[in-house]
Amino acid sequence: MAESSTQENVVEDNVASVVVLVTGGCGYVGTHTVVRLLEQNVQVVVVDNVAWTNDGTEGSKPKSLQRVEELTGKTVVFHNIDISNADALEKIFNSYRFDCVIHLAALKSVGDSCRLPLDYYRNNVAGTVTLLEVMKCHQVKKLVFSSSATVYGEPQYLPINEEHVTGQKVTNPYGRTKYFIEEILRDLCKSDPEWSVICLRYFNPVGAHPSGRIGEDPAGVPCNLMPYVAQVAVGRRPKLAVYGNDYPTPDGTGIRDYIHIMDLAEGHWAATKKILQNGSKGSWLAYNLGLGRGYSVLDVVKCFESVSGRSIAVDFVSRRDGDVASSYSDCSLASSQLDWKASRTLTDMCTDMWRWQSINPHGYQSN
Amino acid sequence: MAESSTQENVVEDNVASVVVLVTGGCGYVGTHTVVRLLEQNVQVVVVDNVAWTNDGTEGSKPKSLQRVEELTGKTVVFHNIDISNADALEKIFNSYRFDCVIHLAALKSVGDSCRLPLDYYRNNVAGTVTLLEVMKCHQVKKLVFSSSATVYGEPQYLPINEEHVTGQKVTNPYGRTKYFIEEILRDLCKSDPEWSVICLRYFNPVGAHPSGRIGEDPAGVPCNLMPYVAQVAVGRRPKLAVYGNDYPTPDGTGIRDYIHIMDLAEGHWAATKKILQNGSKGSWLAYNLGLGRGYSVLDVVKCFESVSGRSIAVDFVSRRDGDVASSYSDCSLASSQLDWKASRTLTDMCTDMWRWQSINPHGYQSN
Repeated sequence: MAESSTQENVVEDNVASVVVLVTGGCGYVGTHTVVRLLEQNVQVVVVDNVAWTNDGTEGSKPKSLQRVEELTGKTVVFHNIDISNADALEKIFNSYRFDCVIHLAALKSVGDSCRLPLDYYRNNVAGTVTLLEVMKCHQVKKLVFSSSATVYGEPQYLPINEEHVTGQKVTNPYGRTKYFIEEILRDLCKSDPEWSVICLRYFNPVGAHPSGRIGEDPAGVPCNLMPYVAQVAVGRRPKLAVYGNDYPTPDGTGIRDYIHIMDLAEGHWAATKKILQNGSKGSWLAYNLGLGRGYSVLDVVKCFESVSGRSIAVDFVSRRDGDVASSYSDCSLASSQLDWKASRTLTDMCTDMWRWQSINPHGYQSN
Repeated sequence: MAESSTQENVVEDNVASVVVLVTGGCGYVGTHTVVRLLEQNVQVVVVDNVAWTNDGTEGSKPKSLQRVEELTGKTVVFHNIDISNADALEKIFNSYRFDCVIHLAALKSVGDSCRLPLDYYRNNVAGTVTLLEVMKCHQVKKLVFSSSATVYGEPQYLPINEEHVTGQKVTNPYGRTKYFIEEILRDLCKSDPEWSVICLRYFNPVGAHPSGRIGEDPAGVPCNLMPYVAQVAVGRRPKLAVYGNDYPTPDGTGIRDYIHIMDLAEGHWAATKKILQNGSKGSWLAYNLGLGRGYSVLDVVKCFESVSGRSIAVDFVSRRDGDVASSYSDCSLASSQLDWKASRTLTDMCTDMWRWQSINPHGYQSN
């Protein structure tokens, strides 16, 4: 039997004893990932500063995590702390013996990052350094990191594979924080072979859990296409502004690679398994998580209209600085090395997004 | 009269009322820069964690700064704090009204940065973010930053001008911290036009103040060529290891651009003047500070032997990973925009280095 199969069995057999820390576990990627981990009987501890919401009462679990518990019938330990708070993190690491950390905590608005770059470098970069220092101190050296396809900057070729240059022509500070953290992690792995790190480069996560109980709940005006479309469909916003319809694409609108949030959550579990299987062998690895094909803005709008039965008013406006015509992934590396592949279609994404949005028109604040 | 002349006069006339904070002001670049500022009647406040030395008694000025005061007959305010300590920095900014900050505080050993990357990202990057947050909070938005030619990575052409790509093929975490900080500063300037930042990309600072009273005092084994040569000359080390004599250069040894520390200090003053002249006009600028020509390892050794009258034993060993054959600067931008040009020769560098080293064979710990 091959070595990897043996290790696979070890992970599968002992998964109930696996303890994973998820930073930012109350957010969009976090909740769906935690559901996936709980389904695998992984014990999950969440730390989150819950900065994106003011729901819930002091000391109670945020609504998103309560929903996760209702959905799965399992319990999640939750600590309301900021990863920049080294003392608070220390206490958590003193209380649990983590096998792996899934690090999702970050500010994520491209627009805010341009206005308030120091907040982004403080929270995302310095915050991650603090987390890594505490992990190192407690000999927890396995990490799955929430990176982004923005590290590739303007695509030099398509589809984008992991060999594509990173850090050049990255158009905003948010993307730069992800790139900087990837490089910090790479240096860390080079300095100490005990570290094992997987960077997951997300393309555009959309959709929601098929139950419609958890989903994306953007604060303020959504920056991304799909949540905006969903808010137009549900009547929260009058129409969608489409930035540019003169791109060299079939319908003139920009083409992006969308990935269903449940596929993304499964990608996190696949990465976690790989890291646990590695044992003490360290490495720095990066994988694209995308569907491997692109859809235009109008493709998304039409699909959403079709599944929701609502009409989406569209306003064509001029291009935005930094936007490219087309971007989509080559995910064959994740397929071969993580045994992971996105399986949900654009229709699945829109259907699940619409279920979440129509049941919860104002996100977790609905009712 | 041209606008810039008028502004020049304003700065020259009011220079006695100019107050500058120098972080890392007790170090090699710091002490020489402070001397230059004091000669211009600038009021100088130094913050330094004095991590590089354990000289001096608690609460007293480190010896390097005492020497600066003796040399200039002027006083420097000194605070023993770390720039990562936001509360301590706050107090300093509450006590003085700074016109400009010269930010030199940083860990600077390439080798240590490979072994302990988190320390470098913590001190250099996160520390700078803390400094910038405090500056922003106190509306002090003028900064001269101590960057490095390492941001250029492996040279793609020679001489290297400021248009050369940065951040690609940077071979060590130390260099990456400098690159990251440059990018953070660039984003900050884009986000708020009141910020005015000059990044000074040093080539290889060497030499000492001609008095021989201040100079480089490396902790442990010197990482750079010239201080190593000086320690061999003075008898502290038996011989010099030369990494590679099969490079495609005239004598086979690596070629670098060396700059006299007093030229470098003058570059800081030139940058400070430019920033003060800018008034409220913000910008992000970067300038090379070098001699604009290269010398080989053996050129330096021969010159040092000549000025010191000592023989330097040399051991040729294999190349080091990440070293390039040749690197030198094009400094015409600093010449045209800062009215600055390095004027001291390799002989000046070796002569002043030798004076410092022979008077102070064990640096500031010498009696």
